[in-house]
Amino acid sequence: MKYIDGGVTAPQGFKAASCAANIKYENRDDMALIYSDTVCKAAGTFTRNVVKAAPVTWDQTIVKNNIGVQAIVVNSGIANACTGDDGIQMCIKTAMAASSALHIPYEGVLVASTGVIGMPLPLDKIQAGIQSMVPILSYDNEAGTKAAKAIMTTDTISKEASVTMEIGGKEVIIGGMSKGSGMIHPNMCTMLSFVTTDACITKEMLDKALHIVVEDTYNMISVDGDTSTNDTCLLLANGKAENPIIDKEGADFDTFVEGLMEVNKTLAKMMAGDGEGATALFEVKVAGADSVANAKTLAKSVVTSSLTKAAIYGHDANWGRILCALGYAGVEFDPENVDLYFESQAGKIHIVHKGVSTGYSEEEATKILSEDAVTAICDMHMGGFSATAWGCDLTHEYVSINADYRS
Amino acid sequence: MKYIDGGVTAPQGFKAASCAANIKYENRDDMALIYSDTVCKAAGTFTRNVVKAAPVTWDQTIVKNNIGVQAIVVNSGIANACTGDDGIQMCIKTAMAASSALHIPYEGVLVASTGVIGMPLPLDKIQAGIQSMVPILSYDNEAGTKAAKAIMTTDTISKEASVTMEIGGKEVIIGGMSKGSGMIHPNMCTMLSFVTTDACITKEMLDKALHIVVEDTYNMISVDGDTSTNDTCLLLANGKAENPIIDKEGADFDTFVEGLMEVNKTLAKMMAGDGEGATALFEVKVAGADSVANAKTLAKSVVTSSLTKAAIYGHDANWGRILCALGYAGVEFDPENVDLYFESQAGKIHIVHKGVSTGYSEEEATKILSEDAVTAICDMHMGGFSATAWGCDLTHEYVSINADYRS
Repeated sequence: MKYIDGGVTAPQGFKAASCAANIKYENRDDMALIYSDTVCKAAGTFTRNVVKAAPVTWDQTIVKNNIGVQAIVVNSGIANACTGDDGIQMCIKTAMAASSALHIPYEGVLVASTGVIGMPLPLDKIQAGIQSMVPILSYDNEAGTKAAKAIMTTDTISKEASVTMEIGGKEVIIGGMSKGSGMIHPNMCTMLSFVTTDACITKEMLDKALHIVVEDTYNMISVDGDTSTNDTCLLLANGKAENPIIDKEGADFDTFVEGLMEVNKTLAKMMAGDGEGATALFEVKVAGADSVANAKTLAKSVVTSSLTKAAIYGHDANWGRILCALGYAGVEFDPENVDLYFESQAGKIHIVHKGVSTGYSEEEATKILSEDAVTAICDMHMGGFSATAWGCDLTHEYVSINADYRS
Repeated sequence: MKYIDGGVTAPQGFKAASCAANIKYENRDDMALIYSDTVCKAAGTFTRNVVKAAPVTWDQTIVKNNIGVQAIVVNSGIANACTGDDGIQMCIKTAMAASSALHIPYEGVLVASTGVIGMPLPLDKIQAGIQSMVPILSYDNEAGTKAAKAIMTTDTISKEASVTMEIGGKEVIIGGMSKGSGMIHPNMCTMLSFVTTDACITKEMLDKALHIVVEDTYNMISVDGDTSTNDTCLLLANGKAENPIIDKEGADFDTFVEGLMEVNKTLAKMMAGDGEGATALFEVKVAGADSVANAKTLAKSVVTSSLTKAAIYGHDANWGRILCALGYAGVEFDPENVDLYFESQAGKIHIVHKGVSTGYSEEEATKILSEDAVTAICDMHMGGFSATAWGCDLTHEYVSINADYRS
């Protein structure tokens, strides 16, 4: 397996396009279209919020009923959430507009939205956007990159990743794009992730692969579960690689999962590092836990602690906050057995031994914490299980963005 | 029952003192002493964090074993948490210093600390502080107020409340002081609350009263449970009011609980409104829930949502975030039945009806949200249960305080 350039258009048979539909943003692209030459199997994971945006409901039905998918229409600016009956009507009309422009069944059109909650989508602009994107659909990486930019809201960088691997003597490619810093700052603007592959794989194994991967990637940049109203991860497989169909567990499935994990881990870390207002990617590794579940719970508790995040922003080795966040995670452990370390490109430092300070150099710790990617390592000395979570620091800019996001 | 001036020295027989012990802060008082002329019954509630500060362990043992209490020694600046065996030794030595200066048994001395985690307490300064406070112990309200100031860390105002009531023909007074904005911003600097009363009441009923009251006051300004390593609420009763002893449920107990609720609710709301960096008290009332437990869960979910808090800071009626926070609280409800209102001294406005916008005036909503105390009312239309939670807005200043709290 190796990384290659490109995003959703990297696998064979996938095209992308984008346009400026003026839905809410001005002078920038705010719609994207992903299209496959042939019908795809689709898997998806969605927000667990009780309040679900209309596109989530629409996509869930399609994915659950194993309806073949050929296109995804995405808009940024308005989330189409808390829009009542009109919201779901808007999904149907969007799908019908894509259906007629692309000459495909409307039940095979997935939709996704991100932006302000509670505002209605302007149907005429959505329809015009679809009309303008269909003629410019392209296999080029550039089209994929433009699509990745079009779905951004408060993101500061677009997010793409692709890998290639060999399965059954054939080259299989997985590509993806995502937006959002959503799950780091739980319950804020949406996480959307779109992954394409030319792998030949059954719907059942595609579902299985996605669920395995989501647990260790997107779900590790979240504390409150999938809290946004719109969070969506969609995976389309069109089979164009012509590998022997992956229809059971085994070496081929493992290879596919490994590739899928890489693409999604890269996208997830990019989201975490691009958290609203963030100046640093904050990685938390928990080692020596007594179960994987507890390792994950502990890692998430630290990575989402506001106080810890503010300390990372201040390049302050305020380890008491980390120990405190471990302590309220809901996992039993002996505080007097815990070791803590900080690590970055600038080095690694042992901060806490058996629950108390090692008497480390604050100067050296601050130097290590001044990099744009920093890691806290928590060794619980309870067992052999570990987990990693990703987040970012909490900054003045985060408050600025969210105090007047709508204005 | 009516409010009166004063704090911990308002009830009969309680004295207070404070001093500048130079533990961490300079040029301000940082130690307080509360003393009762006679031995008190004591009740307490403490942090549920796995990582407990040494004073919590010390106080829990005393309260649990029904040991008579006559004094509380408090310091700010250093939390005496994550200090290993030395931490508990420091509690014992503090109690012994108070014991010898006050001529009381050392097992009757409660201790409390708040401030930086992981640093050792300077014993000589603590001992000198106790020596200097004993001669100036006073029944005056002024002494109580100075004590309330001495225990502040990032607080901007000191917090006191007192009420008087009649029980069995005798005047009974309850007074209290507290510090911290700790439970609003979970896992940060400690909440400490000290309440005194001259009521005559059994240990059993004192425990019961405190637990009833804590559930609806301090625990409603928290989302992650009692997350700090040091959170402590102590209640001392010295019996000097000479009312007929309250030894069972009934009218007298109810009167006492009512008074205790008022004092603690006032202190809790003051803590919420004085949350680190806060510009406004944010109150969330959930009505029409199908159980009290669900009403509390929903109210806490909204009051601690970073996004909602940032919107309150921006005076932005971003109701989608409130609906979203209700949605991920873990309570089942129908989003299409929810009504939302905002209320403050400037008026009341109906924002959402049956899950969608009422088409309210943004201008009017912003006016209502520009007051220094604002309320969101969420009517779930599911049943007859309600709950109120208190918090504050999320501001630039919060980030500033916590990015360099130690420096």
